[in-house]
Amino acid sequence: MITVEKALQTILENARGFEVEEVPFLESVGRVLKEDIVADRDFPPFNRVAMDGIAINHRFFEYGVRDFKIEGVQPAGSPQEKMENAAHCYEVMTGAVLPENTDTVIRYEDLEIDTLMAKVVLDEVEQGKNIHKQGSDRQQGAVLIPKNRIITAAEIGVLATVGKSMVTVSKVPKVMIVSTGDELVEVDQIPEAHQIRRSNAFTLVSLLEKLQIKAETSHITDDKEQLKEKIGEYLKKYDALLFSGAVSKGKFDFLPEVLEELGVEKLFHRVAQRPGKPFWYGIAEGKSVFAFPGNPVSTYVNCLAYFYPWFAKSAGFELKEETVILGEDVAFKPNLTYFLQVKIEIRYGHLVATPIRGNGSGDLASLTQADGFIQLPQGQTEFKKGETHSFIRYRY
Amino acid sequence: MITVEKALQTILENARGFEVEEVPFLESVGRVLKEDIVADRDFPPFNRVAMDGIAINHRFFEYGVRDFKIEGVQPAGSPQEKMENAAHCYEVMTGAVLPENTDTVIRYEDLEIDTLMAKVVLDEVEQGKNIHKQGSDRQQGAVLIPKNRIITAAEIGVLATVGKSMVTVSKVPKVMIVSTGDELVEVDQIPEAHQIRRSNAFTLVSLLEKLQIKAETSHITDDKEQLKEKIGEYLKKYDALLFSGAVSKGKFDFLPEVLEELGVEKLFHRVAQRPGKPFWYGIAEGKSVFAFPGNPVSTYVNCLAYFYPWFAKSAGFELKEETVILGEDVAFKPNLTYFLQVKIEIRYGHLVATPIRGNGSGDLASLTQADGFIQLPQGQTEFKKGETHSFIRYRY
Repeated sequence: MITVEKALQTILENARGFEVEEVPFLESVGRVLKEDIVADRDFPPFNRVAMDGIAINHRFFEYGVRDFKIEGVQPAGSPQEKMENAAHCYEVMTGAVLPENTDTVIRYEDLEIDTLMAKVVLDEVEQGKNIHKQGSDRQQGAVLIPKNRIITAAEIGVLATVGKSMVTVSKVPKVMIVSTGDELVEVDQIPEAHQIRRSNAFTLVSLLEKLQIKAETSHITDDKEQLKEKIGEYLKKYDALLFSGAVSKGKFDFLPEVLEELGVEKLFHRVAQRPGKPFWYGIAEGKSVFAFPGNPVSTYVNCLAYFYPWFAKSAGFELKEETVILGEDVAFKPNLTYFLQVKIEIRYGHLVATPIRGNGSGDLASLTQADGFIQLPQGQTEFKKGETHSFIRYRY
Repeated sequence: MITVEKALQTILENARGFEVEEVPFLESVGRVLKEDIVADRDFPPFNRVAMDGIAINHRFFEYGVRDFKIEGVQPAGSPQEKMENAAHCYEVMTGAVLPENTDTVIRYEDLEIDTLMAKVVLDEVEQGKNIHKQGSDRQQGAVLIPKNRIITAAEIGVLATVGKSMVTVSKVPKVMIVSTGDELVEVDQIPEAHQIRRSNAFTLVSLLEKLQIKAETSHITDDKEQLKEKIGEYLKKYDALLFSGAVSKGKFDFLPEVLEELGVEKLFHRVAQRPGKPFWYGIAEGKSVFAFPGNPVSTYVNCLAYFYPWFAKSAGFELKEETVILGEDVAFKPNLTYFLQVKIEIRYGHLVATPIRGNGSGDLASLTQADGFIQLPQGQTEFKKGETHSFIRYRY
């Protein structure tokens, strides 16, 4: 049995770099950016009018001129106009190019306009006012978004602005999720008294969807030959396999044996944690095999605690580390890391974790009441209200 | 000009209840649940073996018996067996039904097994040990997930378990996103010196995708007749319209005029906030029209601050309120609510907000550096490090 820290380290050492691919930018949300996004020109690309009003040549305002003849209009989206008479003004719209021969914009609120004349009703105007200067946000060639970032709506706007209609992102791995256990029936079936419906495979599908992985699923009965044949195929076809169940010490828990017979090198089996202890992990030709215990909470926490970091490392982005404050005392005697389900409340900028008293690793419904798992370290048995510990969040 | 609070209140008063629809459960992630999910039977549905080992009748252990003859095996997924001789034991697997005539499970770790005999190497065993009692997690009829909850991977597992292959969720509204402005060209075009690429419409599409809304987009040139004709069509066809641009005081900002001519009742225009002030909001036959100012940051913050709450209220779920701690002093003179872009760090369970010094509402790239907007209230001009304020998050 190894520690949670050692298990995670082992898995991260076996992260593999994913290849990259180009996708249409609007389909890139949630994907990991694999190229620096660079300003294709200055931002703004011209001296941009920032308020509706008039543009003047500030020198004349300084000379005492307050009444300016309107020489023309510069709308947004039109090529730059030239003001011929420097003592005149130009009506300008937000987003327009500042007309040649002008250097200051005065907004309508500070004007009285009479057909062809604009009167400025201010005593002072700063030169360059209400102009968003060319290149003042970002200069051409500047990195606007560094690679290895998860793309969100904010990045989509930048991609559009610099004309990246196709964008290079990390490929997602091909993943097969396999459930085992003869007690399982399909979701649309009525289980016999001794049966339950398949659920872990679908939970895993949803957890992987958050990473933009569209996983496939299959179910294999607790039959050694069947397991061997199917897993053999999957090992050829997929980059990672996730199992739920068949890794305990039961008579029909063939999985570890079958995996080793198929040449998957076991790196560990059993981690000093609760829930999720009988977790088996191995590799075969760079492919990772995560065999999670079949209890719903065990599968859930292990996917978050191990598969997510493996994926992040492989795709090249950093998972944010979160810490929360324990909201009540917790006692936990076993010499194991304790992944305790908690609900998070934000009180005055503090993340306070209240334990959900679930009924152990089989209690699926408790997952719907919690926001994540606080990670209480091995070797400590009393955890006091106010202590800060690591947190794995799954609900915001 | 109205306050942010009053603007939000006005919008929430015009939230509309969405209809409901049934979708396959695996497609329900991110949707708003509109039915209580109830346990279709006890959880667990039977006295469930929680460890691999043997099941015994505890009375015989009490009598001093330590060697138990193995009468049979009860695998997971098989109908309940009956142990004929109460002094015997049954081998049992995790997930199996507890055999009739047994009441306690002893795990393999506490046994020595010799073909047909199991010897218990413990001095004490609690009656009922290692059994996950029928109904101990949840009893038949109990509400496992109350309605009006956003469905995540945790809920997917429960839906599968209770056999909800189809689930009732809130319909998403039909939304049209309209960009305006003659200075805009498409993403795959090379803009002239005075032009920029369309980006806000795509940012809005992405922001709405997070709510599972698949919005459509269109672009209308700054032409009053065109605007009127197209918007007239959209008002018939969509539940909500989102605009970006054409609501300032410019000569070509026809939008408010056109909307009112089409019978959209203006509820406000201009909110005491920065950025995003010239926001126009109106309703027509229960449909909401959100006309955001065209600057990227203005559009972004207003979608989060107004459209998101409108959607949440309409769909019937509660947006979590978040607060963060200001990490440095901020001064802001205007008598406006200040939506300041900040980056969030979690330090020992505290959410600390560091302002991103962007370049105003036009600076799209600054959005990629921040995690959200801290909302600094109107009427205060000095904000001190350590103060707690509301926070609108867009990146985790």
